[in-house]
Amino acid sequence: MSNKSEIEEGLAFAPQFGGDGLITAVVTDIKSGELLMVAHMNAEALRKTIESGEAWYYSRSRKALWKKGESSGHVQRVVELRVDCDQDALWLKVEQEGPGACHTGRRSCFYRKVEAGEGGARLSFVDADRLFDPKVVYRK
Amino acid sequence: MSNKSEIEEGLAFAPQFGGDGLITAVVTDIKSGELLMVAHMNAEALRKTIESGEAWYYSRSRKALWKKGESSGHVQRVVELRVDCDQDALWLKVEQEGPGACHTGRRSCFYRKVEAGEGGARLSFVDADRLFDPKVVYRK
Repeated sequence: MSNKSEIEEGLAFAPQFGGDGLITAVVTDIKSGELLMVAHMNAEALRKTIESGEAWYYSRSRKALWKKGESSGHVQRVVELRVDCDQDALWLKVEQEGPGACHTGRRSCFYRKVEAGEGGARLSFVDADRLFDPKVVYRK
Repeated sequence: MSNKSEIEEGLAFAPQFGGDGLITAVVTDIKSGELLMVAHMNAEALRKTIESGEAWYYSRSRKALWKKGESSGHVQRVVELRVDCDQDALWLKVEQEGPGACHTGRRSCFYRKVEAGEGGARLSFVDADRLFDPKVVYRK
């Protein structure tokens, strides 16, 4: 499907994967509404997510399909899945199992804010408490 | 900067643009917390955003830098900018000028949900009221 108005106003699900075969997935917590993470899905990850109701992604660095929580137990149950106007981004509202979504041990991957400064932008920590120890959770 | 722990735990801002020179930007409403849109920035769009405090993006379809609200007046004032663990995604919390962020006239670009069905996934409208008429707003 390539018709712009069908993609934007139609009821056919036609996810627009990029040249790399991936689509962006934004993940928020169903209860708090907070942004937990941004990840990517290939067609197989999306199919498995819809079929199972639990989030699967594609890791660009590891070049592999992965189920969120596979190692950590921090599974994401997808309560609602939405798609944007041009169908090239997905929004997952999830119930996050366990204390956090980020592999660093935080609730959210977005634990630093960017602030303009004289010598260029700098980061500072915010909502950066570690809620679990990655070394324990990801032991293999 | 390529050291994983510096990127994840350091305070140097080192946005990791992809092979296409772009980084994903997730945009939420500072008041309601709702997800408004997902867009992309190149280095120049990011620089202009930080310098001006208003959101600039890079359009992949038009292959051009654009200031959000340039045509519509629906400018986004960036109240807070965050970066994720591996610094390849940005989160903008914005004050959205005007009734909506989506070029289709809705508040958010995510106005359809995906539901599994027997013949495959289908979409249905949700929070899909048009708050402005794109034909009027984008007249040129």
